[in-house]
Formats: sequence, structure tokens, C-alpha cells
Amino acid sequence: MECWSNGGRMKLGKLLLSVLILTYARPGLAQELKKEFIEPQPHDSRSTAVKVKGGTMLFLAGHTASQPRPDADLGNFDAQFRATFDKIKNTLTKAGGSLDDIVSMGVYLTDLRYVPEFSKLAKELFKKGFPAVTYVEVSHLARPQSLMEIQPIAVIP
Amino acid sequence: MECWSNGGRMKLGKLLLSVLILTYARPGLAQELKKEFIEPQPHDSRSTAVKVKGGTMLFLAGHTASQPRPDADLGNFDAQFRATFDKIKNTLTKAGGSLDDIVSMGVYLTDLRYVPEFSKLAKELFKKGFPAVTYVEVSHLARPQSLMEIQPIAVIP
Amino acid sequence: MECWSNGGRMKLGKLLLSVLILTYARPGLAQELKKEFIEPQPHDSRSTAVKVKGGTMLFLAGHTASQPRPDADLGNFDAQFRATFDKIKNTLTKAGGSLDDIVSMGVYLTDLRYVPEFSKLAKELFKKGFPAVTYVEVSHLARPQSLMEIQPIAVIP
Repeated sequence: MECWSNGGRMKLGKLLLSVLILTYARPGLAQELKKEFIEPQPHDSRSTAVKVKGGTMLFLAGHTASQPRPDADLGNFDAQFRATFDKIKNTLTKAGGSLDDIVSMGVYLTDLRYVPEFSKLAKELFKKGFPAVTYVEVSHLARPQSLMEIQPIAVIP
Repeated sequence: MECWSNGGRMKLGKLLLSVLILTYARPGLAQELKKEFIEPQPHDSRSTAVKVKGGTMLFLAGHTASQPRPDADLGNFDAQFRATFDKIKNTLTKAGGSLDDIVSMGVYLTDLRYVPEFSKLAKELFKKGFPAVTYVEVSHLARPQSLMEIQPIAVIP
Repeated sequence: MECWSNGGRMKLGKLLLSVLILTYARPGLAQELKKEFIEPQPHDSRSTAVKVKGGTMLFLAGHTASQPRPDADLGNFDAQFRATFDKIKNTLTKAGGSLDDIVSMGVYLTDLRYVPEFSKLAKELFKKGFPAVTYVEVSHLARPQSLMEIQPIAVIP
């Protein structure tokens, strides 16, 4: 009988162990990032919406081009674009993420006629899916040479 | 004694079952959406803030009126409002949500004197509570006919 | 033997109790807010990014100065700043939070030359870390006297 009793207890013990493993393995699963791009518009380099559950949120400050590339300040839109996204990439890396983690982007331009150029350049940046983008024309940006300011929100796995 | 021992084990088994049920029923509860409208201002069709815990986030691109309603482009604010929110509703539906899931809205207008009209029209849209709205006047929107661009964030249950 | 058996059951019972305690104490831990300031720039009173996991999100409407301080409307930037943040603080308090819970701030100014003044005043507000700030100049704000409108996102523990 002791043997039986012991066996029963062992079964119970194993079951309990399974509960422990399942319970403490689950938090990781529960918070795992799920991301879905709603109505991606590849020709516009943006999605109509991006749906996200879980993950870690990263709110970025408005990013503009600055010192690293002197030509970025001379009215060259392409150079400013690259310098701005180099800085964004740098910030994302420091936070443990990458450009593909951007889910939303407020794009403030001093002239909206740059939108097609912006969109063409953005196509090269995002490999896994396009963020939800809002283009707005503003009268001025913080530095008089700035042609664009980008305010991204990212969700990191 | 075996009987007692068995009975004891059964009690333990039932307790274990309860733990299992409670544990695996809980994740749904833990991530369930809780939403609270802080200082709703029904006369302005907006809340001072919206508090949310859990749920699935949906970042929408800036939405404007377009082709579906030709009159929406002829300087008719009401028609543009309806065409814009039809598109937003459409995006939300594709993502599994509805207008009532909007928690925050950036409203970019080419003329802020439209705010009272916007607010009046918005009153009909939101049945469960008003989002946190920010009105900003911008010099231009992506298309010259656009009078408004809306950038919503929604949280879907 | 009964004693041993009973002892074994007690051990199992205690183990089960530990599982119960750990399991139901954990949700709080799993959703506990983790916040990290990426590249804080104290001289600019802002961080390059703010990383957050867990917590309760609070989306605030655009806040401006209004009635409470009549002098806030007379073109006095400092007075408007204080009146605006008094209102933001009030909203945060009603939602169970404080100024230090702000992670992101869209700052809409009618003249970007106020940025250094804004930054100087903001230094006094944030004691634990600076939010990710985006400064944008807009042509008008909802009321003609407004010099600034602030759209914060907070994450409350």
C-alpha cells in the first residue's frame, strides 16, 4: 500500500511540476508581441493601421537631422532623410530595437510636396511592413534648416 | 486508512484542479481591456483623458476624405467629415474594432474655426464615450482639397 | 506510516500553497511598470526616447491654458506654461497619476523661438526623468490667445 500511496503522490508531484512549468513559462507567452499590418499600401510606404498586442513600447522624441552630416542641413531632402533616420536607428538600437519595430510615425514636413520623395526613400527602410504614417505640413521646425521632423512610436518584441 | 488516504488525495486533486482552472482562465482576465473616461466634456465631444489597461493597440495612419464621395472634395466640411470617418470606420472594422474603440485623436484642420462644427458632428459618432482629442491648425494637408486629417489611436478589447 | 503519509501530504500541501501564492501574486508583477529613459538630455529637458512595459496608459487631450489664471491669456509665456501644466497635473491626478508619469509630449507652439523658454521651465517639472518631446510650430491653436498646446501620453504604475 505504501508503494501505491507513494506512486500516487509521485503522479500528483509530477502534475504539480507541470502546473509550475506551465505557469511560469506562460508570462513570456502572454506578453509576446503580436503585430499585424492592416491594409498595407506599399506604393505609399505605409499601412492604413498597425495592430499590436504585447511587447515593450518605445516613445521617441521628434527626430531631425543634425551635426553628423553637414550636407544634411543644406536643403538636400535626401541627405536630411538619411541623417534623420540614422539618428532614429541609433535611438532604436540603444533601446534594443530596430527600424522594423516602428508602428506609427508622425511626419512633420515644412513642405508637403516632399511626400512622394519621402515615400520613395522610406520604401528602402522598412523590410517587414510599413508603419501607420501621418503627414502634416507645419509652418516651422525647431531649427530653420530642418525640412522634416519624425516622431515615431515603436513596439519592441 | 487507505480510504482516508485516498479521500485526502482526492481533496488535494480537486484543489489542484481549481488551481489549474483559475490559472489558465486568468490570462484572459489579466489582459482584458479596462477603459475609463476622465472628465468627459460632452459639449465638446471629447474627454480630458482616456485611461486604458490591456487590450490590443491600433495605431492608425492619418485619414482624409478621398474618392468614394466626390462631393467630399468640394469644400463641404460635413461631407469631408463623413467621408473621413467612413474610411476610419472601415479601417477599424478590418482590424476587428469599431469607432467606440478610439481613445485618442489628433485632429489636423486647415482652419480651426471648424472646431465647433467638427465637435457637433463628432457627437453623433461616439456612443460609449469621447476620445481624448487634440485640435491643431496646420498650414497644409497632403491633398490641397483636404480640410481635415485625423490620426486616431484605438484600443480594441 | 500514517504519520509519514500525513507528513508527505503536508509537504505537498505547502508546495501547493506556494504555487497558489506565487501564481496570484504574480499578475501584479507581470504587469508592473518598467520604464527606461533612453539618452536623457537634461539641458533640453527631454529624453531621446522613453521605453515602457506594463502599467496603465493615459491618453490626454491637447491641454491649453484657460480661465483659472487670467494673466495666462495676456501673452505671458511663463504664466501660460504654468496654467497649462496645472491643468495637465489636475487631469493626471484625477486619473491616479502625476507629472512624472508622462512618457511622451507633443508640444505645439505658435512660435518655436519659445523652445528654450519652454525647456527651461520644464526642467523644474520633471523630477524622475524627462519625457520624449516633439516640438512643432503650428499656424494657430484653438483659442487665438494660446501660445502653446500640450498633448501628453502618460503611463501610470
